Amino acid sequence: MIHDVPRPLPLDRALEAELQHVIDTKTKPPGSLGRLEALALQMGLIQQTARPRIERPAMIVFAGDHGIAAEGVSSYPQEVTAQMVANFMAGGAAINALSRSAGMTLEVVDAGVARALPASEGLVDAAIRRGGTRNFAHEPAMTRDEALLAIARGAARVRHHASLGTNVIGFGEMGIANTSAAACLMSRICGLPLDACVGRGTGISGDGMNRKRAVLAAALERHRESADPIDTLATFGGFEIAMMAGAFLAAAEARMTILVDGFIATSALLIAQAISRDVLDYCVFAHASDETGHRRMLDYLGAAPLLQLDLRLGEGTGAALALPLLRAAVAFIGEMASFESAGVSTKGT
Amino acid sequence: MIHDVPRPLPLDRALEAELQHVIDTKTKPPGSLGRLEALALQMGLIQQTARPRIERPAMIVFAGDHGIAAEGVSSYPQEVTAQMVANFMAGGAAINALSRSAGMTLEVVDAGVARALPASEGLVDAAIRRGGTRNFAHEPAMTRDEALLAIARGAARVRHHASLGTNVIGFGEMGIANTSAAACLMSRICGLPLDACVGRGTGISGDGMNRKRAVLAAALERHRESADPIDTLATFGGFEIAMMAGAFLAAAEARMTILVDGFIATSALLIAQAISRDVLDYCVFAHASDETGHRRMLDYLGAAPLLQLDLRLGEGTGAALALPLLRAAVAFIGEMASFESAGVSTKGT
Repeated sequence: MIHDVPRPLPLDRALEAELQHVIDTKTKPPGSLGRLEALALQMGLIQQTARPRIERPAMIVFAGDHGIAAEGVSSYPQEVTAQMVANFMAGGAAINALSRSAGMTLEVVDAGVARALPASEGLVDAAIRRGGTRNFAHEPAMTRDEALLAIARGAARVRHHASLGTNVIGFGEMGIANTSAAACLMSRICGLPLDACVGRGTGISGDGMNRKRAVLAAALERHRESADPIDTLATFGGFEIAMMAGAFLAAAEARMTILVDGFIATSALLIAQAISRDVLDYCVFAHASDETGHRRMLDYLGAAPLLQLDLRLGEGTGAALALPLLRAAVAFIGEMASFESAGVSTKGT
Repeated sequence: MIHDVPRPLPLDRALEAELQHVIDTKTKPPGSLGRLEALALQMGLIQQTARPRIERPAMIVFAGDHGIAAEGVSSYPQEVTAQMVANFMAGGAAINALSRSAGMTLEVVDAGVARALPASEGLVDAAIRRGGTRNFAHEPAMTRDEALLAIARGAARVRHHASLGTNVIGFGEMGIANTSAAACLMSRICGLPLDACVGRGTGISGDGMNRKRAVLAAALERHRESADPIDTLATFGGFEIAMMAGAFLAAAEARMTILVDGFIATSALLIAQAISRDVLDYCVFAHASDETGHRRMLDYLGAAPLLQLDLRLGEGTGAALALPLLRAAVAFIGEMASFESAGVSTKGT
């Protein structure tokens, strides 16, 4: 089976000087809007215009279960993944409230949830394997072909939104035990010891935390997969993580501005950028999660997060919180007067 | 002349345990929404309800000129204050774009601008003294009575918005040379040496910066005002700063949630909290400005800013950028399901 892996193009920087001039001649001391100025520049380059816009901003939440949950690495039982999907569909989860607040369209995708889900209008069934991934304590979480299929299905969801006009997108996830998968992916891609990558997830502690560490250390030791990032993904990943990796690549290929959420989303981006480094040009790093390891992921990517709000929830919540900053960037570059047009004197000394 | 100085009440914390329970039983790991949870709690306490709301959020920008500008302490000429007020009224300044983006009503108040302003519908004329403050290199910037009048007029603007239903408010300012005023107020109120308080403002450097430092050091040396914060305000303050001090007190008295902007706004809050410490219970510190000294002001107040975006513009821009975080806090506490209502299993281990 051949699956399409999206290939983003590097950002075209031809407009950079013109955009910088537009930004510098707005009625404010040069540079005084700080990081909003860099956001406006990036969005202008992505959209190839001095008037970037935000069109139909979307949030896709991918949900999937993890075989590794059987090892007792999470403080919540696996049934919570399906229960939380039902909560998303009923509108009661954090990402429902925060995407509504930000004015983002929310889509929920079943990437492979273990328990039966109630039929629900609007839930996208893209499940790779009913039952979730295999337990990577004993065998690879998925086959290479399953990983490629998940990448393709994640990309397809993004192309669907591109066809509806979306030009800003964020990705979230739900999957009990997925901080375990993400920690292993991080350890492999960043070449860091497990202790630098593993954290408390939804709040495991004490013996549970020791167990999580031991299970993951043994798994990293057991597997000897190739250095191909798709093999790494297949070995430790989740279906929701694989779909996010494909979604990142497709969003960059479609020249969207991408809001990167926390630890799990960034683990998917680690895979995506190992496939095609150019994806990073389209990324805005929304926040620094409180989950141990996220800061180091950001350092590895050379990324400076916009927000530091001590979040450790996932679901795309950090990404949704950053959308208003993009709105502000687009507003200032599009709406502010220049010194000349407003008749304001420029700097004297 | 007797002027009313508003007196806020301390925050009533009777609802705290109930609010914390509501927050902790939402469908998320406890504490995982980080600082949004503290915001929801604070707004619930201020509004005395587990369903806090944001009603008619407003931004008031106070503009005033400073006699100290004659000493060459700013990199922009004094005429820029009036020109920027015209820019505000035409809708072309940063705060226009950012308050529109945040969905805030914007009001501009002439607190005492030196140059003639074009008649403009909507501009509130509250000028204390046409010509701006006196030059505090030689004499106090204003009389005690002028300071009290400015406090009362700032308070009156807030009461106007309270009567229209506003329950969240931010304050911004425009005034060439007002970082000089703010640095002196900070030095006096915080008891810090001038060097810890003075910064580059809109971008002064080299000889200009040395001059600014020397002028302010001499002024701090010259004046021997009393320890009464209103005398400190009268000696070094601006009319826009004095109005903001009154506005802070009136907003707390009216039980509004207050978004605190950067260096100048926080200097006004230093005065306000020296008059009545209870004002701080109602404050949300929107951001840490790039202006030297703002961090130390925040430390003095024990405040942790929400955003760090390297802004150094003023006008209330940082306060406007933080409003969406309040919207998100209100959204999650008001709209999320509880574990019980959503049928989601709670933590197992």
